[in-house]
Amino acid sequence: MKKFGFKLITIDKKCKARVGKVTTPHGTFETPVFMPVGTQGTVKALMPRDLKDAGTEILLSNAYHLYIRPGTEIIRKLKGLHKFMAWDGPILTDSGGYQVFSLSKLRSISEEGVKFNSHFDGREIFLTPEKVIEIQEALGSDIAMIFDECPAATKDKAVIEKAVHITLRWARRAKKHHKLSSQALFGIVQGGTFRDLRRESLERTLEIGFDGYALGGLSVGEPKPEMLSVLDEILPMMPTDRPRYLMGVGTPLDFFEAVERGADMFDCVNPTRYGRNGTAFTSDGLVVVRNGKYQKDAAPIQKDCACYTCRNFSRAYLRHLVNSHEILGAELITLHNVHFFVNLVKNMRAKIRQGRFLQFKKAFFNRFDPETR
Amino acid sequence: MKKFGFKLITIDKKCKARVGKVTTPHGTFETPVFMPVGTQGTVKALMPRDLKDAGTEILLSNAYHLYIRPGTEIIRKLKGLHKFMAWDGPILTDSGGYQVFSLSKLRSISEEGVKFNSHFDGREIFLTPEKVIEIQEALGSDIAMIFDECPAATKDKAVIEKAVHITLRWARRAKKHHKLSSQALFGIVQGGTFRDLRRESLERTLEIGFDGYALGGLSVGEPKPEMLSVLDEILPMMPTDRPRYLMGVGTPLDFFEAVERGADMFDCVNPTRYGRNGTAFTSDGLVVVRNGKYQKDAAPIQKDCACYTCRNFSRAYLRHLVNSHEILGAELITLHNVHFFVNLVKNMRAKIRQGRFLQFKKAFFNRFDPETR
Repeated sequence: MKKFGFKLITIDKKCKARVGKVTTPHGTFETPVFMPVGTQGTVKALMPRDLKDAGTEILLSNAYHLYIRPGTEIIRKLKGLHKFMAWDGPILTDSGGYQVFSLSKLRSISEEGVKFNSHFDGREIFLTPEKVIEIQEALGSDIAMIFDECPAATKDKAVIEKAVHITLRWARRAKKHHKLSSQALFGIVQGGTFRDLRRESLERTLEIGFDGYALGGLSVGEPKPEMLSVLDEILPMMPTDRPRYLMGVGTPLDFFEAVERGADMFDCVNPTRYGRNGTAFTSDGLVVVRNGKYQKDAAPIQKDCACYTCRNFSRAYLRHLVNSHEILGAELITLHNVHFFVNLVKNMRAKIRQGRFLQFKKAFFNRFDPETR
Repeated sequence: MKKFGFKLITIDKKCKARVGKVTTPHGTFETPVFMPVGTQGTVKALMPRDLKDAGTEILLSNAYHLYIRPGTEIIRKLKGLHKFMAWDGPILTDSGGYQVFSLSKLRSISEEGVKFNSHFDGREIFLTPEKVIEIQEALGSDIAMIFDECPAATKDKAVIEKAVHITLRWARRAKKHHKLSSQALFGIVQGGTFRDLRRESLERTLEIGFDGYALGGLSVGEPKPEMLSVLDEILPMMPTDRPRYLMGVGTPLDFFEAVERGADMFDCVNPTRYGRNGTAFTSDGLVVVRNGKYQKDAAPIQKDCACYTCRNFSRAYLRHLVNSHEILGAELITLHNVHFFVNLVKNMRAKIRQGRFLQFKKAFFNRFDPETR
């Protein structure tokens, strides 16, 4: 079985955008890459064959959610997450740090771990950095994430600093506890929008040493220029020979900004969540399919799109499905959105290779309807 | 463009079960056949490619529903129902008689037609036999149904008799108004469980003359033996050179009973409705996927099933999806159910050809869990 590896292939001549290649036990993929989100062991509304068809190369699932339901033991018994959800490509599992802090109101953090009540049935749960590693080893994902404390970005510096320090101590324990040699382990850099804390978090995470490095706690409500300023500061300090994963970000425009600055991996619920709500992403901006102006529109969501939805269905039909509360509407628009996100980031690779990433970005920004940004 | 046609191929040596071949402008199929129901222009939760994959040969849609929403003019403008819903195989459209009487509480029936309020937005609608033909011609379905009055089977004989007579007069008007030569038109035999009314309805519908004949108003609450007794009486009186369509029936066991007596075509919402509710049909009976006993069950819904769902997913995974309210659960179980219904009826053809239909029926009844009948 192939182990995890990353190889830097090229850097755009005119900016920091880079193409890399990631090897995992379940196949290889190039970066920049977008990972559709399959929180509960399913990318909402899509069959694995739809995901393949949309060009998906790696998907993300969530250790916290799967631990709560159906439970790690069941997935272990069913021979791991890949087999369980019938996805034979690479999987990255998020640790659930973010979910513990966003979904659970009552929680108590100690040096040992976090005690909280399940968002699902209220039962008390105690997660430690070691436990979260064990969960991900049982799931058998290709890339595991350390368990981090992820406070709201709006908190005081003292709170963020405390979170950075406990995350570092937990990262050390996670690394020590991690045994599954076929599984990569990524560290997570925290620090909110405080650049000194980000630098400290990165430097000390690098000292521990991981297969890849993620930036957490961004795109959580802070103004966009602050996020970009953190990326400007931190991405150049990250090692060139490891993948750089910007967690939970974001929109097509965000991907351009982050790739330009040297980020490699992305995940976000936007394509699936917007899809279920009847909103499609296109190169021209958002298309609210329910809008009356599409009532008799024979055109597909996006004219030049090669996805199954755009090859077969008109906006008028999709609008009818959404208005009629038909599940198929959610399925078809989600499929288009995932195809759009995956292929937009894939197309960036070709442009980086040609040294034309910045032109591509400029053209995209010019075309994308500013009112739907 | 090929016109509609029906050819009787063979009759089982030991019963009245028969194999036929139907030709339509959108392709041919053999009978007995099961038609998945796509009321609003979508077989709920399934993409057209999933339907093909499940073996679907013809599907049913509903003129009444599509007239209400999105409206006939939109579908005409989008080049007809096949193109609108991206289904290139045969489509039968039900007229909506049953829906007008089951979905709308306030209605007034006159010789001219039915006035009622839309179940969707309450606006007043007036449907006549001619109007319903025009709707179906605009949809461009391969088989259209006449507009019938369809009273509850529990009504007095006088009520049923009146419905039979008005349906006959409407049938004559429908036939006269029907112009689309590429579209077949089927008559509908009513009469509840009154065999004399059924006979009269059939005889006078035959006098008008249609491309096929349907039995309506069965499986609507009457005891099963009464339905079978109507089939025993009426099916042998129906012409051998026209398809016989038993509307809205029913369960796998019903199909065996009806095919044994000489019925050819079926539609029913059971596979899709049960699928969305997390219940699967198998040769062993119903599988309530949510049931705790499937929590760690690595087996597929049905071991020998060739559908996409059974080839890829365990009961444990499907149970997890249903419990987690994931749309994919509805999709995968619906896909299995449609595959099961379509292929069960398809398999009957082979048995009829071998003169072994009754053995096949007996084996199926013996295996099917009586507690889930």
